[in-house]
Amino acid sequence: MATNKLDELSINTIRFLAVDGVEKAKSGHPGMPMGDAAMAYALWSKHLRHNPKNPKWPGRDRFVLSAGHGSMLLYSLLHLTGYDLTLDDLKNFRQWGARTPGHPEYDLDCGIEMTTGPLGQGFATGVGMAMAERYLGERYNRDGYSIFDYNIYAIAGDGDIMEGVTNEAASMAGHLGLGQLIYLYSDNKITIEGSTDIAFTEDVKGRFDAMGWHVQKIDGMDIEAVSSAIDAAKAETGRPSLIIARTNIGFGSPAKQDDCGAHGSPLGPDEVMAAKNNLGWPTEPTFHIPDEALANFRGAVDRGAELEKDWKDKFEAYSKAHPEQAAELKDFEAQGFVGAIGAIPAFTPEDGKVATRVASGKVLNAIAANTPFLIGGSADLGPSNNTAIKAEGSFTRDEAGRNIHFGVREHAMGSVLNGMALSGLLVPYGGTFLVFSDYMKPAVRLAALMGLQVVYVFTHDSIGLGEDGPTHQPIEHLAALRSIPNLTVIRPADANETANAWRLALTRTDGPVALALTRQGLPILESKEETVDRGAYILADSEGQTPEIIIIATGSEVHVALEAYKVLTDDGVKARVVSMPSSEIFEEQDEEYRNEVLPPDVRRRISVEAASTLGWGRYVGLDGISIGLDRFGESAPAGTIFKELGFTKENIVGKARTLLGDKINK
Amino acid sequence: MATNKLDELSINTIRFLAVDGVEKAKSGHPGMPMGDAAMAYALWSKHLRHNPKNPKWPGRDRFVLSAGHGSMLLYSLLHLTGYDLTLDDLKNFRQWGARTPGHPEYDLDCGIEMTTGPLGQGFATGVGMAMAERYLGERYNRDGYSIFDYNIYAIAGDGDIMEGVTNEAASMAGHLGLGQLIYLYSDNKITIEGSTDIAFTEDVKGRFDAMGWHVQKIDGMDIEAVSSAIDAAKAETGRPSLIIARTNIGFGSPAKQDDCGAHGSPLGPDEVMAAKNNLGWPTEPTFHIPDEALANFRGAVDRGAELEKDWKDKFEAYSKAHPEQAAELKDFEAQGFVGAIGAIPAFTPEDGKVATRVASGKVLNAIAANTPFLIGGSADLGPSNNTAIKAEGSFTRDEAGRNIHFGVREHAMGSVLNGMALSGLLVPYGGTFLVFSDYMKPAVRLAALMGLQVVYVFTHDSIGLGEDGPTHQPIEHLAALRSIPNLTVIRPADANETANAWRLALTRTDGPVALALTRQGLPILESKEETVDRGAYILADSEGQTPEIIIIATGSEVHVALEAYKVLTDDGVKARVVSMPSSEIFEEQDEEYRNEVLPPDVRRRISVEAASTLGWGRYVGLDGISIGLDRFGESAPAGTIFKELGFTKENIVGKARTLLGDKINK
Repeated sequence: MATNKLDELSINTIRFLAVDGVEKAKSGHPGMPMGDAAMAYALWSKHLRHNPKNPKWPGRDRFVLSAGHGSMLLYSLLHLTGYDLTLDDLKNFRQWGARTPGHPEYDLDCGIEMTTGPLGQGFATGVGMAMAERYLGERYNRDGYSIFDYNIYAIAGDGDIMEGVTNEAASMAGHLGLGQLIYLYSDNKITIEGSTDIAFTEDVKGRFDAMGWHVQKIDGMDIEAVSSAIDAAKAETGRPSLIIARTNIGFGSPAKQDDCGAHGSPLGPDEVMAAKNNLGWPTEPTFHIPDEALANFRGAVDRGAELEKDWKDKFEAYSKAHPEQAAELKDFEAQGFVGAIGAIPAFTPEDGKVATRVASGKVLNAIAANTPFLIGGSADLGPSNNTAIKAEGSFTRDEAGRNIHFGVREHAMGSVLNGMALSGLLVPYGGTFLVFSDYMKPAVRLAALMGLQVVYVFTHDSIGLGEDGPTHQPIEHLAALRSIPNLTVIRPADANETANAWRLALTRTDGPVALALTRQGLPILESKEETVDRGAYILADSEGQTPEIIIIATGSEVHVALEAYKVLTDDGVKARVVSMPSSEIFEEQDEEYRNEVLPPDVRRRISVEAASTLGWGRYVGLDGISIGLDRFGESAPAGTIFKELGFTKENIVGKARTLLGDKINK
Repeated sequence: MATNKLDELSINTIRFLAVDGVEKAKSGHPGMPMGDAAMAYALWSKHLRHNPKNPKWPGRDRFVLSAGHGSMLLYSLLHLTGYDLTLDDLKNFRQWGARTPGHPEYDLDCGIEMTTGPLGQGFATGVGMAMAERYLGERYNRDGYSIFDYNIYAIAGDGDIMEGVTNEAASMAGHLGLGQLIYLYSDNKITIEGSTDIAFTEDVKGRFDAMGWHVQKIDGMDIEAVSSAIDAAKAETGRPSLIIARTNIGFGSPAKQDDCGAHGSPLGPDEVMAAKNNLGWPTEPTFHIPDEALANFRGAVDRGAELEKDWKDKFEAYSKAHPEQAAELKDFEAQGFVGAIGAIPAFTPEDGKVATRVASGKVLNAIAANTPFLIGGSADLGPSNNTAIKAEGSFTRDEAGRNIHFGVREHAMGSVLNGMALSGLLVPYGGTFLVFSDYMKPAVRLAALMGLQVVYVFTHDSIGLGEDGPTHQPIEHLAALRSIPNLTVIRPADANETANAWRLALTRTDGPVALALTRQGLPILESKEETVDRGAYILADSEGQTPEIIIIATGSEVHVALEAYKVLTDDGVKARVVSMPSSEIFEEQDEEYRNEVLPPDVRRRISVEAASTLGWGRYVGLDGISIGLDRFGESAPAGTIFKELGFTKENIVGKARTLLGDKINK
């Protein structure tokens, strides 16, 4: 190992901060930081362009710890290089309220670029980060002014490399030639159940070669080798780079090095002692940071300040040379989509029946014509999802157009959207059928957990898709999505609710929005202002009187609810129809509004939604009825399925009569 | 093309049955059957060992149409070769109640081996079918008696090859050297959005080579080439085979061949005419089947009868030579797990605190010792999931042990479990953390849709996992799983409920069961007989009087509910605690029982579950309170998190007092 004394001291500082942190928390993953410290040190000390005193500097390189369980490696590096993460934070590892949770959580204030832990997500999200860099660079960079010009580094483990989402994202990255990606794969041959040989014997280099990556195999414990490999990766700008670095999990631990016992539990006091002795480290005090090592790491502060200053000077000059471009960027940071929102069209009943997916396509195009910061595509269902921005080109290897072809890779799409959103300058959207939201769920969850502004265009939102049948008909998906904290699900009932849903998606900056849109045409409802803003609203009512019965519906079922309402009203029943495009938003309203829409005393309630009834008990209570689908769908024309499965005015009226029976009996 | 006249006639028969079927249904996918008919014909006429008159013959080869949208290809083959699928069924394609839905649905009566459509699932499920064959063969075959000795064939498309689950499964199959797999990849260069070049330019051969597959590239329109490649694949028994077959989507259609327009819509009457003219096919009548072609296909009936007879004779002789083995197989078919269930242990309070994951491991081992038909493993979390059968070996390339190391491949695990269950002779189980059920959701859905007996061992089922934090703490997952039709979710409250949950999982033959198990230890409840069988039961009560308040809880929260119950009871409140391990099972009970457990008049109800409250409204109604988590978790010791987030007796008692307030006020 060509490691000088200071390097070694610095690397061991990382190792034992991690070891001591895990030991103090009595839980965590010491093996990875011990094994990957050298490699991480090589990257952070010799290559990573960052400014610890301004983690939000837009020109910085990104570092993603895809193997998130090695969080103490990242926390140690952040503290040592001078980020706003104290030694006390490190000592507080995995404790209530700490900034150092078990797995890294997105927190730019202290330099954590994204939440990781669920394997494969860091790897795949980085691909989105690179696509954002490519898009922004191509749009805004000018000769002599490389404003957006950074690399995305990551450390990934065996688990990342095995996950399917990684392969999807890697295939995309190779296809697009994303040279900004420089990934270190810590090939330590150990997984939780033992040697990787028990499950994973493929030729990783061969697989990534085949997907168009630039692949190197090196000794990951040799910082010169790591540094040279990173140099070669930086020089290769036309292909993403994977550096397969042989590492030793639990390096330094006499009993646990290269053993799965080092992975997910503290070493234990005796083994900590043995490891410290083995690597010539003082056993006391814990959390020891030698002054020379600290000074060495903290060099990052001055280097970072200089890097950012150079960038700022360049941006200043750029602003003068290209004021229009600079203004576009500054305006977006200041105002978001205010201008583009004004371009959202309105629809009238004269438009005839419009599928909400078609309305969505029109709205999207109107918005996109007025802002460059909305970018997206579909997982090979563009023509069905209506996700194309018609005036714009495709995102290809040669040109970063605004229409992304994700291929049949829903999961990678979800992660890539997250990566693009993390740029802070783009709001990305992605389309697929609602039923296939399943394939990307782990990425949707991470968007919600990180609070990222991402828009999902989930079309073909019910049995209304018809003939494709049960495999393609979502049943449980609305409930599943609604149960995710901080995800707003909107199922609009017509083109105008769709327009409002998009408006809301553009203004909701602290979490993702999922649109559930019909395949089939729907009439335009009598226009209501801002229908979606309050989550639910009274669409038809019993003219000023307290209703005897309330029908609550969403999406396409609002129309059949209206038909039932007419029958009931004609029969003298005081009925109300509530359109509830978003229960999450409705729940955020004040009690007064909620009680106005759903008066607590009105207990005869029927929900109508062509989906799992799970969740509707909250609104219909113990005395109401949910018309829904607690079964899988059928393959047939949509009209037939709706009729056969009870989404008819007759069925709703019948259920209403059942509820109203007690009125008669009383 | 070395195709003789009869072959050509036969292939065109498939093509135009598909074309006419789609045309009549006015929806569907004609391009794939037109392009893949030749390849499928080569496989079905020259290689596939099957008996159309007994689709359940255990010795048959399996054929999986992974590209399920090409369903008319499969339906045509099934009808033509003599399965119980009529020409009227074909004419009824995609209509209500038809046996020919838009995508194939598992229906062995007419030869449909599995439900496909969601891409990648067929590919990955086939891997499980091969593992079942390997396991059963190794256990039961004897010299001269190859009882289990069949191949798994599949046709996959570009979408399948792009999906992450495919890569996970392919990596596993290569690792295990599953030579029984012979997959045809229809490389037609076309996806829905256009040429595959827009998203998918990797070297597929290189990728599969790297994963240990035997890969051939051929002209998929040349039946001799296809047949030779299948011969070579059969000869290669140590590696799975991928035959990359260049095909032409929409072959024969003058305007739409090799165009994405052929993929997902009817050709249209004019183009149907043009295609028929182009391939020398009579334009009238539709659904035309030339007699020679039919006779040619129907040869499969006699061949099949003979194949099965040979196998039966062999099995007969085997039964005499190896009566013990034969009896084991016959007993399982007749009685299932009756014997093994008797071995399930009981736990007593003296056992102290037992995590339900630990109880599950003990129960699993007790069962496994008494039956060879339970097989499974974990996605690299075996030591945490307690999924290992301790007395048994691992499933490796060399030996089909009962402990499967899925690697960090949750999604492939889900699909592989389905494939093993489809053997009809194995009940497979798979473990991961509950939060990572997200990664395998599409496979779980398919298990439910197919009604397969699969057991999911989802451990670390709440914030109770503690320090790993929000990325690893399930919140929405119980609701998400409960919303899937035909999946039974059980969250046991102690070791005995866990034992009963396993018993139920072994007896529920028509759908999957998901167990949600704690990381943390739980006391053993006072024993109740068959606690899980009715889904919910009264655990503690107000001694014969109608309760004033009901606390409903699941899993670990049952214990804190009991603590609250004691406080309330001491204060003179008539309280009841209901343990509800499975709301799905509870919903299946008769009204009398449900009303006994939850009397409709008792409206003061509190649900307590450390998960999303979505779904609890059904039980607490408009007047109750749900204590749950409509937010993400935290990284800290479990006890701290439970306390901080309100899972304390104090909080429950406080909420109870709020509800009881109206009693006082009245």
